[in-house]
Amino acid sequence: MFLETVRSEGLNHFSYVVGDNGKAAVIDPRRDCKVYVEIAKRHGAQITYIFETHRHEDFVVGSLELARRTKARILHGKTLAFKYGEGVKDGDTFNLGDITLKVLETPGHTPESISLALIDNAAGDKAVGVFTGDALLVGDVGRTDFYPDRKEELAEKLYEILHRKLLPLGDQAIIYPAHGEGSVCGGSLAAREFSTVGYERQFNPMLAKNRKDFIQHKIWEEHHTAPYFRQMEKFNQDGIPLVAKLLEPEPASADDFSAAVENDGLFVLDVRSPGAFAGSHIQGALSIPLDRLALMAGWFLPYDRKIGLVADRDSDAAEARLYMMRMGYDNAALYLAGGMNSWAEAGKSIESIPAVDVETLRRRVANKEDFLVLDVRNRTEYVQTPSDPSVHIWIGDLPQRIKDLSRNRRIITLCNSGRRAIIAASLLKQAKFGDVEVCLGSAKTYKTLQIPGKTSKRVAA
Amino acid sequence: MFLETVRSEGLNHFSYVVGDNGKAAVIDPRRDCKVYVEIAKRHGAQITYIFETHRHEDFVVGSLELARRTKARILHGKTLAFKYGEGVKDGDTFNLGDITLKVLETPGHTPESISLALIDNAAGDKAVGVFTGDALLVGDVGRTDFYPDRKEELAEKLYEILHRKLLPLGDQAIIYPAHGEGSVCGGSLAAREFSTVGYERQFNPMLAKNRKDFIQHKIWEEHHTAPYFRQMEKFNQDGIPLVAKLLEPEPASADDFSAAVENDGLFVLDVRSPGAFAGSHIQGALSIPLDRLALMAGWFLPYDRKIGLVADRDSDAAEARLYMMRMGYDNAALYLAGGMNSWAEAGKSIESIPAVDVETLRRRVANKEDFLVLDVRNRTEYVQTPSDPSVHIWIGDLPQRIKDLSRNRRIITLCNSGRRAIIAASLLKQAKFGDVEVCLGSAKTYKTLQIPGKTSKRVAA
Amino acid sequence: MFLETVRSEGLNHFSYVVGDNGKAAVIDPRRDCKVYVEIAKRHGAQITYIFETHRHEDFVVGSLELARRTKARILHGKTLAFKYGEGVKDGDTFNLGDITLKVLETPGHTPESISLALIDNAAGDKAVGVFTGDALLVGDVGRTDFYPDRKEELAEKLYEILHRKLLPLGDQAIIYPAHGEGSVCGGSLAAREFSTVGYERQFNPMLAKNRKDFIQHKIWEEHHTAPYFRQMEKFNQDGIPLVAKLLEPEPASADDFSAAVENDGLFVLDVRSPGAFAGSHIQGALSIPLDRLALMAGWFLPYDRKIGLVADRDSDAAEARLYMMRMGYDNAALYLAGGMNSWAEAGKSIESIPAVDVETLRRRVANKEDFLVLDVRNRTEYVQTPSDPSVHIWIGDLPQRIKDLSRNRRIITLCNSGRRAIIAASLLKQAKFGDVEVCLGSAKTYKTLQIPGKTSKRVAA
Amino acid sequence: MFLETVRSEGLNHFSYVVGDNGKAAVIDPRRDCKVYVEIAKRHGAQITYIFETHRHEDFVVGSLELARRTKARILHGKTLAFKYGEGVKDGDTFNLGDITLKVLETPGHTPESISLALIDNAAGDKAVGVFTGDALLVGDVGRTDFYPDRKEELAEKLYEILHRKLLPLGDQAIIYPAHGEGSVCGGSLAAREFSTVGYERQFNPMLAKNRKDFIQHKIWEEHHTAPYFRQMEKFNQDGIPLVAKLLEPEPASADDFSAAVENDGLFVLDVRSPGAFAGSHIQGALSIPLDRLALMAGWFLPYDRKIGLVADRDSDAAEARLYMMRMGYDNAALYLAGGMNSWAEAGKSIESIPAVDVETLRRRVANKEDFLVLDVRNRTEYVQTPSDPSVHIWIGDLPQRIKDLSRNRRIITLCNSGRRAIIAASLLKQAKFGDVEVCLGSAKTYKTLQIPGKTSKRVAA
Repeated sequence: MFLETVRSEGLNHFSYVVGDNGKAAVIDPRRDCKVYVEIAKRHGAQITYIFETHRHEDFVVGSLELARRTKARILHGKTLAFKYGEGVKDGDTFNLGDITLKVLETPGHTPESISLALIDNAAGDKAVGVFTGDALLVGDVGRTDFYPDRKEELAEKLYEILHRKLLPLGDQAIIYPAHGEGSVCGGSLAAREFSTVGYERQFNPMLAKNRKDFIQHKIWEEHHTAPYFRQMEKFNQDGIPLVAKLLEPEPASADDFSAAVENDGLFVLDVRSPGAFAGSHIQGALSIPLDRLALMAGWFLPYDRKIGLVADRDSDAAEARLYMMRMGYDNAALYLAGGMNSWAEAGKSIESIPAVDVETLRRRVANKEDFLVLDVRNRTEYVQTPSDPSVHIWIGDLPQRIKDLSRNRRIITLCNSGRRAIIAASLLKQAKFGDVEVCLGSAKTYKTLQIPGKTSKRVAA
Repeated sequence: MFLETVRSEGLNHFSYVVGDNGKAAVIDPRRDCKVYVEIAKRHGAQITYIFETHRHEDFVVGSLELARRTKARILHGKTLAFKYGEGVKDGDTFNLGDITLKVLETPGHTPESISLALIDNAAGDKAVGVFTGDALLVGDVGRTDFYPDRKEELAEKLYEILHRKLLPLGDQAIIYPAHGEGSVCGGSLAAREFSTVGYERQFNPMLAKNRKDFIQHKIWEEHHTAPYFRQMEKFNQDGIPLVAKLLEPEPASADDFSAAVENDGLFVLDVRSPGAFAGSHIQGALSIPLDRLALMAGWFLPYDRKIGLVADRDSDAAEARLYMMRMGYDNAALYLAGGMNSWAEAGKSIESIPAVDVETLRRRVANKEDFLVLDVRNRTEYVQTPSDPSVHIWIGDLPQRIKDLSRNRRIITLCNSGRRAIIAASLLKQAKFGDVEVCLGSAKTYKTLQIPGKTSKRVAA
Repeated sequence: MFLETVRSEGLNHFSYVVGDNGKAAVIDPRRDCKVYVEIAKRHGAQITYIFETHRHEDFVVGSLELARRTKARILHGKTLAFKYGEGVKDGDTFNLGDITLKVLETPGHTPESISLALIDNAAGDKAVGVFTGDALLVGDVGRTDFYPDRKEELAEKLYEILHRKLLPLGDQAIIYPAHGEGSVCGGSLAAREFSTVGYERQFNPMLAKNRKDFIQHKIWEEHHTAPYFRQMEKFNQDGIPLVAKLLEPEPASADDFSAAVENDGLFVLDVRSPGAFAGSHIQGALSIPLDRLALMAGWFLPYDRKIGLVADRDSDAAEARLYMMRMGYDNAALYLAGGMNSWAEAGKSIESIPAVDVETLRRRVANKEDFLVLDVRNRTEYVQTPSDPSVHIWIGDLPQRIKDLSRNRRIITLCNSGRRAIIAASLLKQAKFGDVEVCLGSAKTYKTLQIPGKTSKRVAA
Repeated sequence: MFLETVRSEGLNHFSYVVGDNGKAAVIDPRRDCKVYVEIAKRHGAQITYIFETHRHEDFVVGSLELARRTKARILHGKTLAFKYGEGVKDGDTFNLGDITLKVLETPGHTPESISLALIDNAAGDKAVGVFTGDALLVGDVGRTDFYPDRKEELAEKLYEILHRKLLPLGDQAIIYPAHGEGSVCGGSLAAREFSTVGYERQFNPMLAKNRKDFIQHKIWEEHHTAPYFRQMEKFNQDGIPLVAKLLEPEPASADDFSAAVENDGLFVLDVRSPGAFAGSHIQGALSIPLDRLALMAGWFLPYDRKIGLVADRDSDAAEARLYMMRMGYDNAALYLAGGMNSWAEAGKSIESIPAVDVETLRRRVANKEDFLVLDVRNRTEYVQTPSDPSVHIWIGDLPQRIKDLSRNRRIITLCNSGRRAIIAASLLKQAKFGDVEVCLGSAKTYKTLQIPGKTSKRVAA
């Protein structure tokens, strides 16, 4: 038997290849799916089944793409009207050599969610592992807010299947969830990627709650819902064009790139580091540092405009395009060949955003300089280490909330490193705010430097 | 927290890098240790501890090599007189960010064996995992025969620590052993690489035995002991030259290679496939197919002669050298540039070994042709699917047992694919047996084709 | 300015990327064309022109494939009715930054052949290099036999353009031909890949001939014409399906593979080394060692049957498929997962071909054993080092000539290493010859071992 | 025959592997020399000779390193007292299969310089190529100023050998020089990398000069002489420690890195892009963008202090270290793990340098703002597109000239893209200049925007 995990960085999405004796199944493949074929080949196996634990909201599932290459059957929960694949139900079993994958219908995160118990018939009849999708995660459980008017029902269902289906698999079962820490599909996931039913039973705070508290907690729980989720739902229910048919973004000279901006409305996405964007960027560009792109693109990028990439090197542009593709953004059309150096050589105009460190920020607060600190972390972070005096608007909400901010005052954006603060600063500049600075430092440290007696104004979360 | 497994194919040795918040530990590193540094770097961590769960018998541990690069402390059991590193004892703890590694002295496999409980302080106080070395394996426990006159004592100790130290960690703990299926350090390991204390408690047959049966079983149990184990023990207790100082094997033309054979006593090791060796090879060459080399080199290769490699391509020769190095064979001096094609082009003489398939073998048996089938599988395989009529000598024993075989009869070697049979055939030809053939097929299939009424003669195991 | 050569091994085809200041041209691209895009990107350039020096006979040109990715214009000689691209004529110029590419119509090898003079306007007005297609090669000139009834006309044209167009470019010009040594498009190419007009003027024997001798030589000259040339001409004149739409060959278990052979008429192509094929192979398989495949596939492989690959490893199967694809063989459907080891493990039947070295061959000749030596080298090799007593049939002609050979005698095949001899041996066995052996050695050496007084019988060439 | 070029980017150094029939020679290897062994192996060849065309000034030659691996002989001009290798003299020949390498003593660039004519005995007796070291380059000839009191003598010698030894080889010979455009070893090299004796004879301006003009030109010619040249001369005459013994730089957390700066005097080298450095950097850091490092390190980096690297990613730090190593900088001790993001997360203080584009710069000049434009390009660039009003100090001279600049005025640095301007800005800030800005744009464009009537003040070159 073999089992390999494929991580999609940024999305913190886990997919799996499991197989035995020449046959393999893939659970929740991503769209760039060559990796699964290669893993299977390495183990001398053919992929015969593709399972989707549920209709994903945060990335485009690669089932159709993978099925095109492998002729494998696509299987998912039967209670949603997918336009492809086959429905499965509780108790269905699928064999791969000595392995049995047994379907458990585990609604809650979504109504059609399934889990798959992994049984090694060569050893014993209890599950040695379980693919839990977004039902049971390491340190948390799946969110239940995707159907706003069915929140209570789904929370109840989740409680039921956790206690009646997943925990009864036994303490010995290793869990293989669809997401790890940092995913938009969970709130309080552990930094650790591995766990067991037994470990979660004892230490997962959500499993310690009784039914009533659990449901209440889930109803009250707040999660971010990105605009792109609707797009993902559509893609994942109906299918999406095959990757093989897409063209790669082409290199463009500084002249061609700026012409495309001016004449064709090219949307400029700059994936360089926060410091590099602060130091010099193209007017109107949106900053999303590459290591945040897989996670954050869906909040800020349009599906209906051609996108031009600015990166430090070609391989970064290729990586950016990959992350975009995983979220269905097939509109990366160009990248600036030679990066900002070629832009500068061509004498094109640049803009900068002044960068400050936390020590400086604190000193300027102490000096009663007139500016507003805009803290764009999520609410949990903000509550744990408040950045008072500040205004808090979570970065994902900023496009909608930007109208609430005064244009007459200097704004200094803040997060835990500068990576989200620079996104915020670029959004403000796109919206023609005149006096924007960015703190390349952490609100956690800022907190320790803080001046007593000040309080923050909470705008929204 | 991060935890990554590094597999050494062939040896089926597992080593681990575990870390948190900028610090990492490596458990049981191999000699080519760059991989650990790279994993740690990828997680932004420095390696500060190197643990050896025990003095390994089957490969050269890379602790000194890794310590040279990282300045990390080397830690191992305190009851053996290692010439480097520091001894640890039951209850010692080592912290890496939020992780605690807690030492459990777990003698049995060897007297100084330790295990390391992995505790995630951010989640709970019970072990989420445990590095078990060769104490508890997936589906089996470690062998206890390395000190022949202390077999009973060590079996008792192993029983004790399994039931008093490892099982009490709780069903939820994932086990991270030092070896997987196919290792010479275990007998009946599962093909699956992952398990938990809870799964093993329920399904590991050795944990189901009572104390008396367990000890009896361990005393009676038979394992292969390779000649090279003594060398490994010495290297691993005293240290071995650093890899960085070794030279790589040089390419040699057919003329230079044959001159080295004739004039310098070069030992020729041919790592090509069984069929390729059978088809054409250099006189006197030993065949060990590349995918068997990591496991089998120690039974057949000399430490004190220069070795010349024959491979299909340069990268295979490099891989062969890597496997050899992991077992302390630093004597790969040459490889035949251009492989057997260049040998043929140079008009050098070749030898062949006739190859037969199992159907042919069976037909010739039925026709009462006069030959001896030499089955070189291990005893378990032989007992499960006997190849009567045949003589059984396990491949590792063949060098010592070759004198028992008659030189007056044709010998046809047999295993489960031809990979060990070709080693055997090459050993016989090295020993000047005149009439040797190889079966490129499986004794398992042969069995089903068999003629009733014949019985095998058992020579040895 | 940059200029990079892309070599296609086996075909010994050279293609080029040349560019300056953000623009690049590709000359004679192959079908797997990502490499050109990557080179251009590395130099910050966009590919704007694709030149075909002529309609190639020996591989599928990748112009359409590359144009799909880059939107570049495709340019070739105007005197052939290509179904795509644009015609160019003598004196047309194309600029890339400071570079000028100037078209020279250079008919001879084919009527529509062009060359491209490379002028560096930053330095001087004479050509610093010239892309010569198959007109002028290193040490030879292009063959002129593709239009059998226009041989004299084309030979005349070639003489003219060599002396009136190419030599006048000046001694200083470096030549960049479409092929190197070993190509089927030339006869006596030098082993060296680089030369200049001046060097060729002085040392190319074809340029030393007067007009009459030159034409006579070209008319008399003999070249091999592979069956697949017609297919290439069609593909290259009309276009071929895009690579992106092709599926990769799938791994097949031994059972599935043998079922495909028996039930679907799968054609088995074994790309392992000669020794490996000799040692053990699947009945009916054709042997073409991987390093001969790119060159020889077109003589032996069918376009209209599914092909199953046997290789030592998956990457070899992928490489074989690549070579096939370059010649328009898009019918590699399967490969045997796990190679011959998995075949043996499954107990499938195998066949062998006895292998002999040249010393043995010679001894057996001396002993007057009754067999026929079949020398399958080309005529030049055969004439230079005759292998008497032997029958000479060039390997490419063997499929047509096989009927001339007696089935009542042992045949031992011979070339210069065994790589073509094993192809021949496998063809004989496919044709049900009963007693076939292969010499894994070189006729060159054989010659030196020879017995006086024997003469060879020449069957054909 | 095979001939491959190995380019060392940045240094624009070319080394070569040439060989035939199992033997190879390397000309002017660099210190990281595995690449040569790999090329030779790919061609089935052993490296038997290592030639040094002269004692290099701009990088550490890898002859000893390569000889350690290959046992090859090291050969160089006999008129310098090297502490290793053997001297060769005019007319000496060395054979590799059918190749002859013939030594030409070609003093001029240095007194012991040699060239090597490449003769392909299989084709003709004239040179098909010539390895010219720094004697004859593409579009230029070597500099003759390394022995200030022997300038005239060396210029004369160079003239002699060009016209009496190199040109007589014939127009057909391809030249293989030791350097390409951008090297510090030449002034006016062509952007093209390939040429022939014939092309240079016709278009190289230095070869068009008569003896007197040539010598005068060479005496007057000005070149930059880096401080590190003395170190290179010593290393290359006496030898340098083997690379295999060096340790790689270790990752350091922000805390450890800043502690090393404060406590151990760590010298911080930041290799990120100009915009990134401008946006945010560590106080006191020297900026040398990675793509300038190979060329410029020797002007600014100390040999006697531990150096800590700041890069966007680990692989950049590794690349930086490689470039440093090629110039004998074996003192890269640390790199900042996680780069500037981890620095920001740790709340460390940062500094910025305001960046302006050329349009802005021009506008501010027009507005008569009070600042000084410091143009750090080389004199040729400066003369071709003056940036008046400005002060011109070539970047390599800045450390010595910095004392000439006023600390009371704002300084804006300028080059052709920002890559040298940012080095200059960081040097000024290291020297405690208070008001420094950087122009991320090109003086070439600036020129076209210029205000008439202003003139520049020339400080030095």
